[in-house]
Amino acid sequence: MSKEISPLQKLRYEYKPKLPKALRGTNVSVSFGAAGTPDGDGEKIKELFPNTFGQKLVTITEGGDAVPNSPIKVGVVLSGGQAPGGHNVIAGLYDALKNANPANKLYGFLKGPAGIMKGNYVELDDEIIDSHRNTGGFSMIMSGRDKITTDEDLSNCKKNFDALDLDGCVIIGGDDSNTNAAVLAEYLRAVGSKTCIIGVPKTIDGDMKNEYIETSFGFDTACKTYSELIGNICRDATSAVKYWHFVRLMGRAASHVTLECGFQTHPNITLVSEEVSAKNTTLGEIVDYIVDVIVKRAEQGKNYGVLLVPEGLPEFISDIKTTIDEISAILGDKEKELAAMSETAEKIAFVSGLLSEGGKKVYASLPASAQQVLLTRDSHGNVPLSQVETERLLIDLVGNKIKQLKAQGKTNAKFAAQNHFFGYEGRCAMPTNFDADYCYSLGAAAAVLVRAGLTGYTVNVLNMTKDSDEWVAGGVPVTMMLCIETRKGKDTPVIKKALVDLEGKPFKYFAANRDEWALNDCYTFPGAIQYYGPSEVCDITSKTLALEKN
Amino acid sequence: MSKEISPLQKLRYEYKPKLPKALRGTNVSVSFGAAGTPDGDGEKIKELFPNTFGQKLVTITEGGDAVPNSPIKVGVVLSGGQAPGGHNVIAGLYDALKNANPANKLYGFLKGPAGIMKGNYVELDDEIIDSHRNTGGFSMIMSGRDKITTDEDLSNCKKNFDALDLDGCVIIGGDDSNTNAAVLAEYLRAVGSKTCIIGVPKTIDGDMKNEYIETSFGFDTACKTYSELIGNICRDATSAVKYWHFVRLMGRAASHVTLECGFQTHPNITLVSEEVSAKNTTLGEIVDYIVDVIVKRAEQGKNYGVLLVPEGLPEFISDIKTTIDEISAILGDKEKELAAMSETAEKIAFVSGLLSEGGKKVYASLPASAQQVLLTRDSHGNVPLSQVETERLLIDLVGNKIKQLKAQGKTNAKFAAQNHFFGYEGRCAMPTNFDADYCYSLGAAAAVLVRAGLTGYTVNVLNMTKDSDEWVAGGVPVTMMLCIETRKGKDTPVIKKALVDLEGKPFKYFAANRDEWALNDCYTFPGAIQYYGPSEVCDITSKTLALEKN
Repeated sequence: MSKEISPLQKLRYEYKPKLPKALRGTNVSVSFGAAGTPDGDGEKIKELFPNTFGQKLVTITEGGDAVPNSPIKVGVVLSGGQAPGGHNVIAGLYDALKNANPANKLYGFLKGPAGIMKGNYVELDDEIIDSHRNTGGFSMIMSGRDKITTDEDLSNCKKNFDALDLDGCVIIGGDDSNTNAAVLAEYLRAVGSKTCIIGVPKTIDGDMKNEYIETSFGFDTACKTYSELIGNICRDATSAVKYWHFVRLMGRAASHVTLECGFQTHPNITLVSEEVSAKNTTLGEIVDYIVDVIVKRAEQGKNYGVLLVPEGLPEFISDIKTTIDEISAILGDKEKELAAMSETAEKIAFVSGLLSEGGKKVYASLPASAQQVLLTRDSHGNVPLSQVETERLLIDLVGNKIKQLKAQGKTNAKFAAQNHFFGYEGRCAMPTNFDADYCYSLGAAAAVLVRAGLTGYTVNVLNMTKDSDEWVAGGVPVTMMLCIETRKGKDTPVIKKALVDLEGKPFKYFAANRDEWALNDCYTFPGAIQYYGPSEVCDITSKTLALEKN
Repeated sequence: MSKEISPLQKLRYEYKPKLPKALRGTNVSVSFGAAGTPDGDGEKIKELFPNTFGQKLVTITEGGDAVPNSPIKVGVVLSGGQAPGGHNVIAGLYDALKNANPANKLYGFLKGPAGIMKGNYVELDDEIIDSHRNTGGFSMIMSGRDKITTDEDLSNCKKNFDALDLDGCVIIGGDDSNTNAAVLAEYLRAVGSKTCIIGVPKTIDGDMKNEYIETSFGFDTACKTYSELIGNICRDATSAVKYWHFVRLMGRAASHVTLECGFQTHPNITLVSEEVSAKNTTLGEIVDYIVDVIVKRAEQGKNYGVLLVPEGLPEFISDIKTTIDEISAILGDKEKELAAMSETAEKIAFVSGLLSEGGKKVYASLPASAQQVLLTRDSHGNVPLSQVETERLLIDLVGNKIKQLKAQGKTNAKFAAQNHFFGYEGRCAMPTNFDADYCYSLGAAAAVLVRAGLTGYTVNVLNMTKDSDEWVAGGVPVTMMLCIETRKGKDTPVIKKALVDLEGKPFKYFAANRDEWALNDCYTFPGAIQYYGPSEVCDITSKTLALEKN
């Protein structure tokens, strides 16, 4: 695609990712562990997945009863948002297949699951793979957000798998895509197809993890990229000594990214959606907390600081949530009346008039731009909260509150703020050595699972805070990770998103340190991701993983 | 300040910056070249600088008639916006002074030139210096934007220099600060002070350069940090294949940063203020150009791309400039009437009614937020253009135009856009090896100039596209770089900002490639700044410098 290759990229093409010991040779076997059943919803899951329920945990080992080596054909697809390392999963899969048997073939389905359903694919070869080793993004075969849901979708998949005579297909995606992989695996088993389906845990949000999945790939690189920038901003704050920087970070549901960036840089304030939700914190209380820190720092002569806020925060704030629910009901009830109004101000006044006292107060406290966004819905019927620009909303509210306090003679704080949003900047970064190694291992392990004829598994690598010599690859039956949620009135199997656990070690470490970080300048400056040089700089895992595994 | 030090920072503390050969030993001399006079305004400059005009170019050489080595006391100050490498200038100065004579002392004035005028300083010692080697930002002694202008300011400086018995003071800053250094040097000479003043060329904007200054420090690191992110975004564009990313980059006057980032990443569209100004391009023409590229790419099935725009662009667009001038006149004439209006919409309608036909049309074409910003002025009387968020303005205008074309059946382009602004993210990055070496050399050279009793010089390093063995350090009399501009009706000496030269090699290289970059996906992905590993990755200069010196 590109004619000019950057010096670093040229060098990265040559990087040889580390593999768990068992995956370094070609003579590998699989050994089976316990057949776990999911907590709680086992019976319902069993009903939905009669053919793939009750499978056993798998560990890949060296030597032994080697997995078959007859030539196979495999497909691979990237699903959902980009995460650094996706290309390495494919490269690891490709190399492992070709090493096992040069006659093996790998096909890449284009632009996400739609590529499977439409039968759009490309056969992957050395040239394509070699020009994407250790690179960022999903540009090799692109990605998409379509889901395989209807019976027609499923049979289209089967038709296209059959046309290619596929022995397996590897689906690289997040919690939804891995659930989708289980559904597809079950369907194919039920109709007697030979195609095995293997999922790979991907998402920069870091919310696909559990006792079998230590971390999703891409989280490490994305957080380190954001932390580089946040560290630079912390340094700017202490150099210019006149700005508060409010930084919003990508991630709608979980606050892992924000928390990890907090660990890497020690900003003065880190807001965690899960805590806000658990404590039923109101918007006013959040503003009060921020203002309190600003005022206390100002008393020390420090009219600067750094705040991190996860993109998804508004949905977790109790009174905002209630207000959104009230507005949603009004939008439904008064659709005609609202459609007849041409002016936004008129709509805002109309809706405001119908809100409860509490809702009215919260709604009135928001800037006009946020009031407007809360009246709109995206194609899925959700409030497009990313348009609220939470960091700007907080700057407005905090600024007003400080003005009030100044007028009352209660503070001399100077509050000048800069806003930032980091999301797209890190989703396609060149993977860190950790993500490059982890992803390559996931791909190599997926090849083994397909060769072993396993289906409905998510591939995993354990022991990742240790040296790669001690890494252990294998697979976990997706059904073991499923639970039932009611969606649109229907029992739906889902892999529960792992939110920040307020009783977990990472959050407790944060809670123990945040007051110190708030008032003192404890900033750390991680700098740019390093690929070469001493291991203590190039091969460190995320602090979140280190704390969880410690 | 920080209790926890990141692994990379720990490692960078130990990095030994490269120096030009002549500066590696302690036995150095200065040799004098031509006594240049500035082009054009020589007579006026001579009048303003009777004591420091006509000084000769200086080169620092090894051995020979070594500069004196009696103990001296020196001050240093950081002025204006942060630029990566500032701490290394101070470290280079400190080490060179201590190596020459351990009795030498270095004082850091705090929070910019105000620190000199108020006599706020700290004596720098090993502990302070060692904890800031090769780090980003100006946090060691902080920075500020005050200027030394009035007679009182000048005499306050002298008073505080005398109190410390300073032999010299090094002022690290951009074009204005180096001019200020010349004014201070002249004043001190005139009143018989012994304190020598040496300027250091700093600015991430890259607009302080001329035949004596190859590049200002910080430009290299800031551009590489922004380019890392832009490259990631280019990769995201080709992975998600559904967004246009509009990226605004810091820099009000010159477009060097934007152009350098364009060289590093090959985005589809790079707007250059200097070209817009030279060609009298209108806002409508800019929008038409962007729409044309979007439509042509859509015809190839590519509904994605990346655009770079310099922050300062609006001031260079002919009809916007004219409209701003018209509005400024109205704001002055109708101050009372406007002050009486409480509603923004009323003000906008009032001002609009008084504009010329052309001005009215341009003003009406802008989104409400931009209309509002154009009615405000900052404390210096300038339109706060950075609040216009040019990238959002362009997204709005381009989106509307494409909607029109679609309605007319002239295109099927899908236009969904994401906006980004990069500024604070790069100003305080850890300096690249290039900036770390360059800055340390500037500091070491400044020490020699002070020891040689020279004043009114800007320190320089030449030959920087070569190996550091061939680097040549020295100084250029600031008066040689001055010209006269009329500011507030008064002849004012200034160092002309180096804008992008449309006849220069960098712009010509861009112009020769831009059509190819526009339509094809020629993106390059520079990745994160690397400090370790092969030299071709860690020690590359900016493409701008390479093209200029080639």
